[in-house]
Amino acid sequence: MLNVAIVGASGYTGMELIRILHCHPEVAVTCLTSEQSAGKKISDIFPALRHRCDLTLENLEPVMVAEKADLIFTALPHKAAMEVVPTFLKLGKTVIDLSADYRLADPEVYGAWYETHLNPANLKKAVYGLPEIRRSKIRGAKLIANPGCYPTSIILGLAPLLKKGLIDPKGIIADSASGVSGAGRAAKVDSLYCEVNDGFKAYGAGGVHRHIPEIEQELSLLAKEELQITFTPHLVPMDRGILSTIYSTSIGATSTEKLVKLYRDFYAGEPFVRILPPGVLPSTANVRGSNFCDISPLVDGRTGRVIVISAIDNLVKGASGQAVQNMNLVCGFPETMGLEGLALFP
Amino acid sequence: MLNVAIVGASGYTGMELIRILHCHPEVAVTCLTSEQSAGKKISDIFPALRHRCDLTLENLEPVMVAEKADLIFTALPHKAAMEVVPTFLKLGKTVIDLSADYRLADPEVYGAWYETHLNPANLKKAVYGLPEIRRSKIRGAKLIANPGCYPTSIILGLAPLLKKGLIDPKGIIADSASGVSGAGRAAKVDSLYCEVNDGFKAYGAGGVHRHIPEIEQELSLLAKEELQITFTPHLVPMDRGILSTIYSTSIGATSTEKLVKLYRDFYAGEPFVRILPPGVLPSTANVRGSNFCDISPLVDGRTGRVIVISAIDNLVKGASGQAVQNMNLVCGFPETMGLEGLALFP
Amino acid sequence: MLNVAIVGASGYTGMELIRILHCHPEVAVTCLTSEQSAGKKISDIFPALRHRCDLTLENLEPVMVAEKADLIFTALPHKAAMEVVPTFLKLGKTVIDLSADYRLADPEVYGAWYETHLNPANLKKAVYGLPEIRRSKIRGAKLIANPGCYPTSIILGLAPLLKKGLIDPKGIIADSASGVSGAGRAAKVDSLYCEVNDGFKAYGAGGVHRHIPEIEQELSLLAKEELQITFTPHLVPMDRGILSTIYSTSIGATSTEKLVKLYRDFYAGEPFVRILPPGVLPSTANVRGSNFCDISPLVDGRTGRVIVISAIDNLVKGASGQAVQNMNLVCGFPETMGLEGLALFP
Amino acid sequence: MLNVAIVGASGYTGMELIRILHCHPEVAVTCLTSEQSAGKKISDIFPALRHRCDLTLENLEPVMVAEKADLIFTALPHKAAMEVVPTFLKLGKTVIDLSADYRLADPEVYGAWYETHLNPANLKKAVYGLPEIRRSKIRGAKLIANPGCYPTSIILGLAPLLKKGLIDPKGIIADSASGVSGAGRAAKVDSLYCEVNDGFKAYGAGGVHRHIPEIEQELSLLAKEELQITFTPHLVPMDRGILSTIYSTSIGATSTEKLVKLYRDFYAGEPFVRILPPGVLPSTANVRGSNFCDISPLVDGRTGRVIVISAIDNLVKGASGQAVQNMNLVCGFPETMGLEGLALFP
Repeated sequence: MLNVAIVGASGYTGMELIRILHCHPEVAVTCLTSEQSAGKKISDIFPALRHRCDLTLENLEPVMVAEKADLIFTALPHKAAMEVVPTFLKLGKTVIDLSADYRLADPEVYGAWYETHLNPANLKKAVYGLPEIRRSKIRGAKLIANPGCYPTSIILGLAPLLKKGLIDPKGIIADSASGVSGAGRAAKVDSLYCEVNDGFKAYGAGGVHRHIPEIEQELSLLAKEELQITFTPHLVPMDRGILSTIYSTSIGATSTEKLVKLYRDFYAGEPFVRILPPGVLPSTANVRGSNFCDISPLVDGRTGRVIVISAIDNLVKGASGQAVQNMNLVCGFPETMGLEGLALFP
Repeated sequence: MLNVAIVGASGYTGMELIRILHCHPEVAVTCLTSEQSAGKKISDIFPALRHRCDLTLENLEPVMVAEKADLIFTALPHKAAMEVVPTFLKLGKTVIDLSADYRLADPEVYGAWYETHLNPANLKKAVYGLPEIRRSKIRGAKLIANPGCYPTSIILGLAPLLKKGLIDPKGIIADSASGVSGAGRAAKVDSLYCEVNDGFKAYGAGGVHRHIPEIEQELSLLAKEELQITFTPHLVPMDRGILSTIYSTSIGATSTEKLVKLYRDFYAGEPFVRILPPGVLPSTANVRGSNFCDISPLVDGRTGRVIVISAIDNLVKGASGQAVQNMNLVCGFPETMGLEGLALFP
Repeated sequence: MLNVAIVGASGYTGMELIRILHCHPEVAVTCLTSEQSAGKKISDIFPALRHRCDLTLENLEPVMVAEKADLIFTALPHKAAMEVVPTFLKLGKTVIDLSADYRLADPEVYGAWYETHLNPANLKKAVYGLPEIRRSKIRGAKLIANPGCYPTSIILGLAPLLKKGLIDPKGIIADSASGVSGAGRAAKVDSLYCEVNDGFKAYGAGGVHRHIPEIEQELSLLAKEELQITFTPHLVPMDRGILSTIYSTSIGATSTEKLVKLYRDFYAGEPFVRILPPGVLPSTANVRGSNFCDISPLVDGRTGRVIVISAIDNLVKGASGQAVQNMNLVCGFPETMGLEGLALFP
Repeated sequence: MLNVAIVGASGYTGMELIRILHCHPEVAVTCLTSEQSAGKKISDIFPALRHRCDLTLENLEPVMVAEKADLIFTALPHKAAMEVVPTFLKLGKTVIDLSADYRLADPEVYGAWYETHLNPANLKKAVYGLPEIRRSKIRGAKLIANPGCYPTSIILGLAPLLKKGLIDPKGIIADSASGVSGAGRAAKVDSLYCEVNDGFKAYGAGGVHRHIPEIEQELSLLAKEELQITFTPHLVPMDRGILSTIYSTSIGATSTEKLVKLYRDFYAGEPFVRILPPGVLPSTANVRGSNFCDISPLVDGRTGRVIVISAIDNLVKGASGQAVQNMNLVCGFPETMGLEGLALFP
C-alpha cells in the first residue's frame, strides 16, 4: 500500500485526486493539506466525500507531510509548488506536481511568462508527465511535471501530425474552450454562476495565456523545430471539459480516412486515447469524469486544412487523472489502475 | 462471473447500468437490447462507452436474452416490462425490473393509476427492492421491483419517523424536484434544452403523479396504517438528482439534534445512507453519480413542523445503482460492490 | 422628465433597474453610486450597458445624490439603506428602498430578525410596496419599502384565499426555489458556477430565513389574524426566477375550477398578474425578464389540500420591476410604463 | 400602423419576432401561422406571451395571410419559404425571409448546398439584409433575405479588414459557437437537455455547414475577390448567443489599437455595433436579448495573426432582431425602433 499526500487538497484538482484515489486499490491517502481550511475535515469542504474520506486538513509543513507519505501530489498554485517541492525531493519523496512550476525546461522561459524561477536546479530532474509521449522517462522519475489541461488536449491532438511531418509546423492555431472548473475554486466575481451561465466568451486572446510556452515547448520537440502557435481559450458554461479545435496546413494531399488510420496506428495500445471514426466528432460530455482523450482528425477538402478536434475532462486527463496515471507509471502499478471509471453521462 | 442482460439499454437508466457494471468485478454484461436501435453498437448511441463497451444492441427476443444471461435488468417503460418478465421468470432467470410494473402489490391499484395489469400472478413473487427497508426479503427474491426515484427519496426520508411513530401519518407533504434525466431520452419538445434551461416549474401537481401509490403503499406499511400524501414534483435544469423536502407534524416535542441521532441509529451500518449533522442540508450535487442518499431531518421550532430533506441521484440510488445494490444482495456479492465510486463534484 | 438616482448600482438589482428604466420614456437616470466601484463606468462593470448607459459610478454622498435626483432607488444591503434614507427624506426626496429596512412595521420584529433598527421614526411613513394589495397607499407615499422576492411570490399567491377566508390561516407551508441572482453579486464560494451548477438544494430551512417576518406580517393582515408559516427556500441552477409552491388546508369544499375563477376575479384588471387555466402550471421561464406573476391555484382532490404555485422573476417583479411599478404609481405615470417588455424565451 | 404576419410562428425565431414587435409602436401583428399547431393559441405554445399576444395560429394559406398583412416575415425552414414567397410578392406584399432561400445570389450555389432552387426569378429582387453593409439597397427592397446567424457574426467581424484590404483574403478561419436555440424547436434527441448540458462539441466540421456559401459570397464581395473560408461551428450549453473567433493573416504591420480605431471609424454611427476597447473581449451574455453585435479586433504580436472576436444573440441580431431592423429600413421607421431593449443580464 502506497501512502500518498495531497498538498493543496481543498481545490477542485485536490478533490478530484481524492475521488480517483478512493477507488485505487494500491493507494492510501494519508495526508491532506490546505492553508485556508486547515483544521476542517475535507468532507466539510466537499460533502460529497462524507463517510468515505473524512480526513482533517492540515497545515502545509513539508517535513510532516513527508513523514506521512511516500508520494506527494502538489496541487498548489504556481510558485507555491516550487517553495515546497525541493524539500520533498530532498527527503527522498516522489513528487507529482500539478502546477506549472516544473513544466518548462528553460527557467528563462518560466521567468518570461510567470516570474523568476526559485528552483532551477530541479528542472532537469523533472519529467513532463504526458505518458503517451514520454512514458519510459516517466517510469523512472522522481519529479513529474503534470501537464496543463489545454496543453494535454493540444499536444495529444497534434503529436501524430508533427511527429510524422504531415503538417506545416508554422501557423498552427488552437482554438480551445474550457469548463469553469479550470478557473479553480477561488471566490471571484468572474466565476460566479450568474456571470458565467448562459454565456460564452474568449479570454486571454492574442498570445498571452501562460499555457502557450508549455504547448510550444512540447510541440517543438515533436516537430524537431521551434514553432509558435496562436492560441485562444474560451469559457463554456459547464463544470468540466476542454475541447480544442486545432487548425493546420497539410503538407501533401491527405484525407480524413487516412488521418484516422494514422492516428489509430500512432495511438495503438494507448488505454486512454480514442480516435473516433470519420464523421464522428468528440464532445466533452463523453469524457466527463473519465481519463479519456477523444480525438477526431479530419480534412477540410475545400480549403485543404487539416483540423484536429480533441476532448478531455480538464480535471481528469487534464489534471488529476493524468497525475494518477503518472503515479501508476512511476510506481509500477498497471497504468489504468483506479482510472477504469467510465464517463458520467448524462 | 455472472452474465447479465440489460433489456432496454438505450435509455439513460440502461446507460447508467452499463457504467456501473463496468466496474463490477463479478459481472459480465453479455446482452443489450433496444427496440429502436437494434443493430447499432451501444457505443454509437452513447459514445462515452467507446472502447469499453462496444456490444451491439439486439432485438428484444426473450428466449435469446435468457440464453445469454443469468440475471436480467429490465429498463423498459411500464407495460413493456410485464410483457417479457413472465418469460424470463419461467426460464428460471432472476429479474430486476426498473419499471413500475411490479412495484404495487395490488393489481387494482396498478389498474387505477396505470392500466390493467397483465401479469398479476407474479406480483406476489415480486419484492420491492429498497434494501434499507427490506434487505432480507430481497436476498431470496427472483423478481425485484426496483423502486421509483421519487419514492426512494421520500421513503428513506420518512422511514425512521413513521416506524417510530414520531409524526402524524396524516397530512404529509412531499415537495420534490428532479433533474431532467428523469424524463428519459425520448425526443420531446418539453425536454429540449431551450425549454428546460434557466427555468423551474412544477408538473403533475394535485395528486396525479404515478409515483404516489407506490409511495403511499410503502409509507403505510411503515406507519402500520393507511395514509395519503400530497406530492408535488418539480423540474430542475440539471441532468441528475432528486431532492425531496418533506413536511410533517410532530407527535410530541422533539429537536433537530434528537432527530439526527434517531436517524443515525436507524440507519446505522447502512453503507449508502448519510445523515448530515444538524445545520447541514443535502444537495443533489454531493450525490451526483453516487449511490448515496443524504438526509437531514430537522425541526422548525416556530411552527413545530418536522421537515426532512433527502437527496439522491435519480439514475443511481433512484434507479440503476439501487438495481445493482439489489443484484448484489440477490447474488450474495458484497452489497457495495461496484458502487464504491464517489460523487463527481464538480 | 423625472431624474432618478440608483444608490448601490453595481449589484444585480441595480443593473436591472438601469435596464428597465432605459426604456422608460419619462425617466432619466442621472446618478449611480457604488462604494466598491466608484470612479468606474457602470458599463465597465456591466458591459451589456455599453453605448446605452455609460455613467460613472460615484461615491454615496447623500446630499450630492439628492441634488441630482428627485426620486432615489436604494439598492443597498439592509442596514446600509437606513443609514442614508433619512437624509434623502429630509431633503424632500421620494425613496423606493429595495432593502429590507422599511418592510417590517414593528422595529422590534426587525431587531429580532436583523439588528437594532436605526430609523424607527420613518417606519410609519413607509408603505409596503406591493401594488396589487396596497395600490392606493403607494400612490401618496414618499417612502416605499419594496417587497422581497420570496414574499412577493407568496403573498400574491395567497392573497385571494386569505382575504376570502377560504383556507385555514394556520399550517401554511411555502416551499420556494430561487435562481442564483437572488444571492447577489458578491464573490462567494457558494455562488461559484461549479458549486451551483447541476445541483439543487435547500438552504435556511427550519424557520430561519429573514423573509419570514415580512411574509407573516402581510399574510396576517390579509387574514386579519396572526399567522405563522413554514418556509423553505431552495437554490436552482438558473440565473433568475422564483417559484413558490404553497400548501394550505381548505375551509369547506372547493375545486380547481372555482379557485381559478376566484383568482381571476380577485386579480381582474391587474396588469401583471396572470391566473393560468386549470391544468396549466407556471414556470419561471415564462416570466424571465418580465414583471409578471403567474399563478395557478389548484386542489388536490385526494388529500383536500389547496395548493398555489406562483412564479416571478426575482429581479423584476421580485425587485427592480416592482420598484419601477411603484415609481409609476408614486409619480402618476401609467402603471405599466417601462414594464411592457415580454419575457425572454428561450 | 403596419399590419404584419409571421409565417411559421411556433418556432423560436417566430416567438422572438412576436416578443420584439410587441414593443414596436408602429406595428400590429395580425396573423400567425403554424402548420403543426394551427388552431391553438400562440400563448398556449409560448405561455410567456399570455395576456399580451393571444392570437390563434392559422394554417399557412398565402392569400389569406396576404389579406391580413402588408409585410410578411417568413420564419420557415428552407424550401418551405420559397414555396410561398412568390405568392406574397405577386400580391404586392413586402417579404422579409428568415430562411436561407434567397440569400445566395446564384441558384447553382444554392443547388449545390441545399437543393434545386424553386424560384430563381425572385433571387435578383432579393437584397441580402445586413444593414451595416447594404443599408441603401435594403431601403427600397420588396424581398429581404435576412442573413443567417453565423454569417452575421462573421461578416460584421471581417468587413472592415476585407474592405480596407488589411488581411489576406485567403486562409481565413472562423471558429464559431452557438447556443442551442440555433437548432430550432424540433423534438430531436440531439437537442435534449441531457444531451447538451455540461458538454461542448463541434459539429459540421470540415467545410460542410450550409452557412459557408453565404459567408463566402458576402466576404468575397467585400474583398472584391473570390475567397474561401474554413468554418467550424460548435454547440454551447446555453439558450442564445453566437461567438465567432476569426483568424486571419495581416498584410503589413498593425496593432490592436490601430485596429480598434479602424473598426470604430468603419462602424461610426452604427446603432447596433459596439467595438470594445483594447483588452476587452465580447461575451454572448452581454448581448443576450439585444440587437447588438459586439466586436473586438486584436493582433497576436507573437504570431502576427489578426484575430477578430464577435458576439451576437443568434435569435436577435442573428435572426428576428435583424429582421425588424430590416423592416424599419424598408418601411421608413427609425432603424432602432422596437430594438432599444438592453441585454438581459444576468
